Amino acid sequence: MKANDPRVAEGLVDASGGKMVLLVADGLGGLPHPDTGLTELETARTPNLDALARQSVCGLHTPIAPGITPGSGPAHMALFGYDPVQYEIGRGVLEALGIDFELKPGDVAIRVNFATIDGNGLVVDRRAGRIPTETCVELCRRLDGIQIPGVEVIVRPVKEHRAVVVLRGEGLVGGLEDTDPQETGVAPKSVTAETDEQRRTAEVLKAFVSAAAELLKNEPKANMVLLRGIASRDPIPTLTERFGIRAGAIAGYPMYRGVAGLVGMDVLPPAETSEELVAAFRDAYAEYDYLFLHFKKTDSTGEDGDFERKVKASETLDALVPGVLGVGPDVLTVTGDHSTPSSLASHSWHPVPVLIRAASARVDRVASFGEADCLAGGLGLLRAVDLMPLMLAHAGRLGKFGA
Amino acid sequence: MKANDPRVAEGLVDASGGKMVLLVADGLGGLPHPDTGLTELETARTPNLDALARQSVCGLHTPIAPGITPGSGPAHMALFGYDPVQYEIGRGVLEALGIDFELKPGDVAIRVNFATIDGNGLVVDRRAGRIPTETCVELCRRLDGIQIPGVEVIVRPVKEHRAVVVLRGEGLVGGLEDTDPQETGVAPKSVTAETDEQRRTAEVLKAFVSAAAELLKNEPKANMVLLRGIASRDPIPTLTERFGIRAGAIAGYPMYRGVAGLVGMDVLPPAETSEELVAAFRDAYAEYDYLFLHFKKTDSTGEDGDFERKVKASETLDALVPGVLGVGPDVLTVTGDHSTPSSLASHSWHPVPVLIRAASARVDRVASFGEADCLAGGLGLLRAVDLMPLMLAHAGRLGKFGA
Repeated sequence: MKANDPRVAEGLVDASGGKMVLLVADGLGGLPHPDTGLTELETARTPNLDALARQSVCGLHTPIAPGITPGSGPAHMALFGYDPVQYEIGRGVLEALGIDFELKPGDVAIRVNFATIDGNGLVVDRRAGRIPTETCVELCRRLDGIQIPGVEVIVRPVKEHRAVVVLRGEGLVGGLEDTDPQETGVAPKSVTAETDEQRRTAEVLKAFVSAAAELLKNEPKANMVLLRGIASRDPIPTLTERFGIRAGAIAGYPMYRGVAGLVGMDVLPPAETSEELVAAFRDAYAEYDYLFLHFKKTDSTGEDGDFERKVKASETLDALVPGVLGVGPDVLTVTGDHSTPSSLASHSWHPVPVLIRAASARVDRVASFGEADCLAGGLGLLRAVDLMPLMLAHAGRLGKFGA
Repeated sequence: MKANDPRVAEGLVDASGGKMVLLVADGLGGLPHPDTGLTELETARTPNLDALARQSVCGLHTPIAPGITPGSGPAHMALFGYDPVQYEIGRGVLEALGIDFELKPGDVAIRVNFATIDGNGLVVDRRAGRIPTETCVELCRRLDGIQIPGVEVIVRPVKEHRAVVVLRGEGLVGGLEDTDPQETGVAPKSVTAETDEQRRTAEVLKAFVSAAAELLKNEPKANMVLLRGIASRDPIPTLTERFGIRAGAIAGYPMYRGVAGLVGMDVLPPAETSEELVAAFRDAYAEYDYLFLHFKKTDSTGEDGDFERKVKASETLDALVPGVLGVGPDVLTVTGDHSTPSSLASHSWHPVPVLIRAASARVDRVASFGEADCLAGGLGLLRAVDLMPLMLAHAGRLGKFGA
């Protein structure tokens, strides 16, 4: 092991220490508006966050690595102290988490696209004309519970042509190639095992595809399924195992609840509004050493490409701060999981502002919580995965490395 | 190997180049005083260090990794260019270095606590009532030289109930479990081998424990020994082997002398006062390519939780600067091994100010040597382990990587 391995902290954990709160404003980072040179967060009136910045050590984190734009899953894994490449979560698993499906260790999850094939078995539409979600729901009900000996087959709708299949049984693995050919005019790829270990899973998936094709053969559009991101829900060491902390998550959206559950957090009932979030936080505070609070609107408004609404979302975030601070956490970290600049209308690789407020923080000269100001902060430009050891240190939960 | 591996520099070493000096003020970094917002170093009047900062490239280094508080051993290993996790030094070895014991490669060192057991062999006091050091000295004399075939057994006192045992002989290894049960009311654990390789060492240690128990059986308090941190002094590639430099160390305290010796530095006679340090440095200068000077008071005053005395210690450090500069080193680095904020009265994880003065340094705008000012420096926030390649580069001792 080398010094920059996030696992170094695991060996130093003290059984007790202060309470930690991670407030994640999804997609918080942005890009400057061409007229003003200010980002969404810098444009927003955020008196509470600015006051917090003046009492904190600030900086910017790089979610994965310079230039790498993260999905929400890996970005949160990094914030929780898991190297997001080492602990890569397969696409099928992320898709299942995204619909609040409770995966068990060993489950294999696959993203499924309903598609259209012609009389010769060639793909003519990889998305089955984006069938309405209601049709997807009905078709999933038809495929759910397809009988394959020794395996439980669960099929759940996602949206339009997208669904999830979960296989539950002995000896199943992930990592098999997609059957989606990524082009039209060709046949779907067949399921193939590349290793002996994959043979059983391949047989099960072949049986599933052929049963599904039979059940769908009279559909006008969705007469075939294409499989993508075949992934097993591998066991992941929990936050309790790694850092001796009891952790809870308060998040409205399934994906974040799912990732929190993967690392062993208790997933508390979702909070819809800011008031509910703060109330749920207050109720849960006594029970946990670490609480993860998720705020979504900074991301969705950025994804919509709406600068003004992202500014407003940042102001809504700001209004949350007094409620969170009022509970008196020993360590409070406010940051985003990644940037979602409204000018790009998508996630991006740009570093994300972060602050850590704690009695043991080396408070710097940053007077305002924004991308340009945080550059002068005492945390510098750091990796997202380093935030968990920093939070533990500020909470007095890490002993000394060596003597 | 990856690009950020400190060993990349090894392949680029030029046989000649400038002379380098590393002045380490132990525990240099601090935390702001609540009344002034200034750290100990920022509070101190340090005209010489400030002038030096204006002629240097500045920054802050992270000793191990964000959030990780280092012991002195690993912190110095990092400053010398050794990844402190990859080259982890066992606790027994650090304890032996701390009493100036000259370990040879292959030696196995163990920290020993004298303890009290009752008539049933159960531990009643893991520290034998903290016997006076004089008693410890006498008991160690009694145990020193216990006869075990094929092995030399050396027992040396540390302080109060603490001692060190060194085993010297063929086929001995470290890594065995402690016999200290970490609680009272139970028997000491027996020495056990977990691998075939450990079998011989386990036999030797069992023989040692039983001989020691026999020799101590009539002691009122210290009638047993508990073993901790069983570690071998593994061979470490020296600075000469890695970087082709001849290195010397001037340090007053055994621990620092010990670590310097581990990486192949010549350990020069200790210097007690600042004047002696500068004089010793001047005398040694011609002989070495790299000199490590250790200044202790910034750490000990921080450990005492004494802000004012740490300020004074920083001013004493400042007074050293003209003497060191006067000798005209080509590359002068001034830094600490870690932070020791007096508000925490202990080592901490906070980054440490650093400056590198050299003709080839890209001098930045930092005008004062302190935590907040160095944040704007040209070195940014870097890993301690990167300082050695930087010093070698500034000394003109590293060739180009690739063509």
